[in-house]
Amino acid sequence: MKKIAILGSTGSIGTQALDIIEQNPDLFCATVLTCGSNADKLSEQIAKHKPALAVTAYEDDAVALSKIHPDTEFLYGMEGLTVAAAMADSDLVLNALMGMRGLIPTYCAIEAGKDIAFANKETLVAGGELIMGAAAKHKVRLLPVDSEHSAIFQALQGNEHKNINRLILTASGGPFRGYTLEQLEKVTLAQALKHPNWTMGSKITIDSATMMNKGLEVIEARWIFDMPAEQIDVVIHPESIIHSMVEYVDHSIIAQLGVPDMRVPISYAFTYPDRIENNCSSVDFFELGTLTFEKPNRKTFQCLDFAYEALKAGGSYPVVLNAANEILVQQFLENRISFIDIQNTIDKVLQEHEVIYHLDMEGILEVDKKTRGELEK
Amino acid sequence: MKKIAILGSTGSIGTQALDIIEQNPDLFCATVLTCGSNADKLSEQIAKHKPALAVTAYEDDAVALSKIHPDTEFLYGMEGLTVAAAMADSDLVLNALMGMRGLIPTYCAIEAGKDIAFANKETLVAGGELIMGAAAKHKVRLLPVDSEHSAIFQALQGNEHKNINRLILTASGGPFRGYTLEQLEKVTLAQALKHPNWTMGSKITIDSATMMNKGLEVIEARWIFDMPAEQIDVVIHPESIIHSMVEYVDHSIIAQLGVPDMRVPISYAFTYPDRIENNCSSVDFFELGTLTFEKPNRKTFQCLDFAYEALKAGGSYPVVLNAANEILVQQFLENRISFIDIQNTIDKVLQEHEVIYHLDMEGILEVDKKTRGELEK
Repeated sequence: MKKIAILGSTGSIGTQALDIIEQNPDLFCATVLTCGSNADKLSEQIAKHKPALAVTAYEDDAVALSKIHPDTEFLYGMEGLTVAAAMADSDLVLNALMGMRGLIPTYCAIEAGKDIAFANKETLVAGGELIMGAAAKHKVRLLPVDSEHSAIFQALQGNEHKNINRLILTASGGPFRGYTLEQLEKVTLAQALKHPNWTMGSKITIDSATMMNKGLEVIEARWIFDMPAEQIDVVIHPESIIHSMVEYVDHSIIAQLGVPDMRVPISYAFTYPDRIENNCSSVDFFELGTLTFEKPNRKTFQCLDFAYEALKAGGSYPVVLNAANEILVQQFLENRISFIDIQNTIDKVLQEHEVIYHLDMEGILEVDKKTRGELEK
Repeated sequence: MKKIAILGSTGSIGTQALDIIEQNPDLFCATVLTCGSNADKLSEQIAKHKPALAVTAYEDDAVALSKIHPDTEFLYGMEGLTVAAAMADSDLVLNALMGMRGLIPTYCAIEAGKDIAFANKETLVAGGELIMGAAAKHKVRLLPVDSEHSAIFQALQGNEHKNINRLILTASGGPFRGYTLEQLEKVTLAQALKHPNWTMGSKITIDSATMMNKGLEVIEARWIFDMPAEQIDVVIHPESIIHSMVEYVDHSIIAQLGVPDMRVPISYAFTYPDRIENNCSSVDFFELGTLTFEKPNRKTFQCLDFAYEALKAGGSYPVVLNAANEILVQQFLENRISFIDIQNTIDKVLQEHEVIYHLDMEGILEVDKKTRGELEK
């Protein structure tokens, strides 16, 4: 029985992870559940999974829920999250938190020696060097849950790192694939929230529409797989069937394919190197007929290049990129700015940033806070 | 330095294997070379690679060549091949022989404890049970060289056999893809010899045109990967970029892709589990644009079903299937029968055959000989 702590259990990844746990009661149980503001959903999950510990963002929610669920311990806020991440009675931490909020809990889980199923790309974008250093020191495994990184992780099995030629991240292109920069200026929130292939949380859906999501994934891949930016390519593949690929020195490419369903990468992270059955669909190649590929349009979708540039420039640049993006996406979701403002403002913020190198945890948090502060003015 | 015995060095696979050896003189050398009737080409290869032993099909050739190459030992015929296969001073045997002719040398190599890079599908079609039993007994590795089986072998790395859902063999569909049965009746030898994607020997090129090649590969996959016919699917993929796939119980599919170039699977068999650089091309997904998939047309290309039926029926059926096919392809190559005669005659021969189960080596050879004899009348 694998005991799993789920950080961010009420989000899209968290609820799908609980589905897998529910369908495999002999293999898994949830020892920790945590939510942001969705205390009602957390309450339902607690009733079903009876975790030892639950964490809410707000104290009021923790107090209220503790009266309904007397057998579960309740904590709240970032302090609660760090306790949840390091909890003794768990074998694996699923980090399904959204945004930089995951950085400290991830670090705490690693310091506690927990393997991490990792779905929180912003943490690696901002703190990749710090997190990977800590993971190496504590001999902790980072098992990727993002479909692209899970695909690469699967495609790397049985192969040596020295034999990798390049990682090929596939991207659907999002709802605005084929748009010109002019067309992008007129898109609405409702349009941006309609991803063609994946049902996901709102932040990652907007990131997919701007293609910042792929940029963040390039940076995530750089850290998880220890590959330089120059050896990470992005290919637009609108059908989202090939989830990503690895090309080796002999020009042999290993790819992972499947219908777009996050339960596959989540359960692979839970069972690695084993696999378990699920009720996802098979790829029907006859019905599918065609898989297509095209170049990313970097003139329209500038976030991809911003991410490459931030990664290559290093230091505090990726922290700024991520912080600005988080704030701007939030502002767009609140209808306070237009879609195109996201990339235009990130461009401006990066250009104005004075880089700092060799950031420790405190330094990362400071740059993050400063960037957010300036954009929230 | 890996010492490689190449059985069938003057054929398409053999010459490409020697290219790899030549390009990697620090890694590989050829200790054995063998040919059928192409003694001139063998002589060139001996001059370059200076093998300890060379084998020709005919005594005259062996005598003539021994005068030109005094430092190389010469043998001939099947007896020579069996000595070559078991030769003490080799680490790996590349079996690039064509047809059932490879059965006895394969068996001898296994009995001598040699790992085998395997490009001789007819041997496994006819003697799969016998060969795999011997390989298991002598703890010998069969490293597949066929592009499809190499793809599956690569896609299986890091995964357990129990987690395989199905093997998906891709097929280009050959030069007559899209043809009706009526159209197939009128095709010429020259048309059949023009494979759209691969440059190969004439026998396998005709087998690709009839789709018997895919049928033989299904049977080969059954033995190499220990999977029942019911879990081996065939998908037409005209671009020959995805070389084959494995679907696991979680519906995750691992595929191997590459430009159609046999040097990739050959060198992977030589270096497994390592990989080495080569001068093959990368897949250019942007230039490629599209990968397509369709159902095999089993009404037109009946050989595929004959192979599935022979595999499911078992016993001597696959031996008959292979023997009939070898003879009929030869007759077609000599312009003695029409293209459609190949599948029509195989159908008839299989229907008339009275099955024998539990064949030993002698039994296999006897059924093979009898089938050939009847068709050569």
